Amino acid sequence: MAIEFFNDSPGITDVPGFRVGAAGCDIRNKGLERLDLTVILADKPCAAAGVFTTNDVKAAPVRFCQSALIASKGMVRGIVANSGNANACTSVQGDQDAEAMAKLAAAAVGSPSDTFMVCSTGRIGELLPMKKVAAGITEATKRLSRDSAEGTRAAEAILTSDTRPKTATACFAWQGKKITVAGFAKGAGMIEPNMATMLAFVATDVSAEPAFLKAALKSATDQSFNCVSVDGDMSTNDTVILLASGASGVALNAQADGALQKLFQEALDRICFALAEKIVGDGEKITKVVAVEVEGARHRADAEKIARAIGNSLLVKSSWFGEDPNWGRLADAAGYARTGLDEAKLDIHYEDVPAVLAGKPLPENKPRWKEIVKARQFKVRINLNLGSAKFRLLASDLTDGYVNYNKSE
Amino acid sequence: MAIEFFNDSPGITDVPGFRVGAAGCDIRNKGLERLDLTVILADKPCAAAGVFTTNDVKAAPVRFCQSALIASKGMVRGIVANSGNANACTSVQGDQDAEAMAKLAAAAVGSPSDTFMVCSTGRIGELLPMKKVAAGITEATKRLSRDSAEGTRAAEAILTSDTRPKTATACFAWQGKKITVAGFAKGAGMIEPNMATMLAFVATDVSAEPAFLKAALKSATDQSFNCVSVDGDMSTNDTVILLASGASGVALNAQADGALQKLFQEALDRICFALAEKIVGDGEKITKVVAVEVEGARHRADAEKIARAIGNSLLVKSSWFGEDPNWGRLADAAGYARTGLDEAKLDIHYEDVPAVLAGKPLPENKPRWKEIVKARQFKVRINLNLGSAKFRLLASDLTDGYVNYNKSE
Repeated sequence: MAIEFFNDSPGITDVPGFRVGAAGCDIRNKGLERLDLTVILADKPCAAAGVFTTNDVKAAPVRFCQSALIASKGMVRGIVANSGNANACTSVQGDQDAEAMAKLAAAAVGSPSDTFMVCSTGRIGELLPMKKVAAGITEATKRLSRDSAEGTRAAEAILTSDTRPKTATACFAWQGKKITVAGFAKGAGMIEPNMATMLAFVATDVSAEPAFLKAALKSATDQSFNCVSVDGDMSTNDTVILLASGASGVALNAQADGALQKLFQEALDRICFALAEKIVGDGEKITKVVAVEVEGARHRADAEKIARAIGNSLLVKSSWFGEDPNWGRLADAAGYARTGLDEAKLDIHYEDVPAVLAGKPLPENKPRWKEIVKARQFKVRINLNLGSAKFRLLASDLTDGYVNYNKSE
Repeated sequence: MAIEFFNDSPGITDVPGFRVGAAGCDIRNKGLERLDLTVILADKPCAAAGVFTTNDVKAAPVRFCQSALIASKGMVRGIVANSGNANACTSVQGDQDAEAMAKLAAAAVGSPSDTFMVCSTGRIGELLPMKKVAAGITEATKRLSRDSAEGTRAAEAILTSDTRPKTATACFAWQGKKITVAGFAKGAGMIEPNMATMLAFVATDVSAEPAFLKAALKSATDQSFNCVSVDGDMSTNDTVILLASGASGVALNAQADGALQKLFQEALDRICFALAEKIVGDGEKITKVVAVEVEGARHRADAEKIARAIGNSLLVKSSWFGEDPNWGRLADAAGYARTGLDEAKLDIHYEDVPAVLAGKPLPENKPRWKEIVKARQFKVRINLNLGSAKFRLLASDLTDGYVNYNKSE
């Protein structure tokens, strides 16, 4: 009962019961060539769950989705999403525009209104060009299909400063039936703790209650999207939505076979983790992906604080960019997380090579660390030797390219 | 009874009862020309107070000072400080070296040991070259004087990546006697909330109990050094020390005339704030100093969280560098401070020009914000309109120069 995993798949068109369509409607005022509108449609009403940004300043579409999921009791028809404009900090008009997007999408597919989720990503503080968005919705719904080429177009249409689409598919068999979990995501800037500027859409063909999906999604998100950091800036729009069509004929709920539940959770975890990893790997102008593994903590929260302090330290991130194994900056950041670490017990490793053991530097190993940090991906391990709790954060370096890219919008 | 204030003064040589000496002893292995060792000596035992980094990983000299202040009951002879090596993460040998510095300085001036404070700043994780340090202490103590030229040399000898010395002097009269408060500081990298990589030495000629000095220094520090941020990285070595010689003949304690206490606190506040401002203004490769004023908060802690989220946001700091008045990023960072702000009540101003009022963007003012952010110094004001608490943080931009400067040690 192994799970088959496909990287860079077509994404949601792999999942029976769903069609997608994408269009370019010139939300950026730079021409119709660039795709910027995606519609995901379930063949019939389907169960949905969402996890959203915890930012006090939530974009209009986030507020809309949260309300719509309650009003619809978690039964929806699909998702309409645009890139190029975040519809965030847009006051009352922003709420009206988000609602209008849902209604336009529902009307275009002949579904009752209030059954579409709405997502936006892009510039903050500007009103959506609703005429263009309406044209885009019309065009995208005309193109709805299960073609893998359209799946790839849909994954492209939500991108902003990403350089490539991010998709993944997992399948497994259960009692002669095939179950699929697949999704696509976008990331790039404002990528950080607790839901990044990112959208991720995941679909599956099990049938399940919304509450069951919500728990499964929350668990997968905590160990994937919430464990990555590019720049520490949490966005106003972060959203992960999971839809379940039921087309596989396999029902999942809290009373289902434990082995089935476990397989499903594992498939969902893998999809979310793969998408999160792709988001870090395609962070704005990054050159390194570094796994920060903190272990031996008294509590998981302590390990997480230290991992985030390290992964978000400008000095640490700059030294990664420079391929300089500056473990002193790791120790400094670990210390200012203020979890009560004991320097005399602290071990620091680059991969398996110790740089510090029990607080004592091992400068003789420097040539070996220097080799390790030249790789595009490597691991730093901080052992506090105070307990058994741990946390792993996937972080990126900070480059002059990032600063120059973000100098202006 | 006005306070006279002198910017870019000679610093501590302005204060009766103190002498300083500086030397170059080649701690960096780059020659003797660069000054890297400072000694500050009181003519006789004097009261002292210190405020230190709250980092769990404290450098050896910080641990030494904290113990020595207790052992000496706050009565010391002076300070010995070096730049070029932080003596941090140096295990047991680091503690022995810090103690040896204190003993060498004490022996050189014929004072009992345990009466010198020790400070170090520079690279982390390397042992001090103690032979060189000993030679530097001998040289610096030979040069001890009240000459203003030596005062400037002492202020130079503690610098690391700073581009200029940071000094200030304040004087006022009390019952026909002149009272002076003066100091010098270093900053540049690892400058952040709650004591930065910074050393600041302040001297005065009042006579006072150590406990009185401690309270006055804590109050001044909270409103100066703890309200600045360059890169959000809190260091292992941050130290502010205040010494009081009593040479003015004016005694200060909790029973002293309220007007005198107030004047002294104001002079001390001004010196600390001036030094803190100079530290931000000379942050590594910065081009902008931005005052982030958060007001209308329910609690001061909420206002502080928001100001720090804004002042430490990579996206906000990058946009300041680009002279792009991207208020959306200010709103986003204010939101992820998660103080429970209400977007519909949020006002954002650049200086006195509104960008957002009651959550509604005012794009027509954009040409005016664009002018404001071209200045080297400007102010952003965030009014939450929820209460009357406020916080002001002095922050800098983030430049490609900072990243490239910090790529390697």
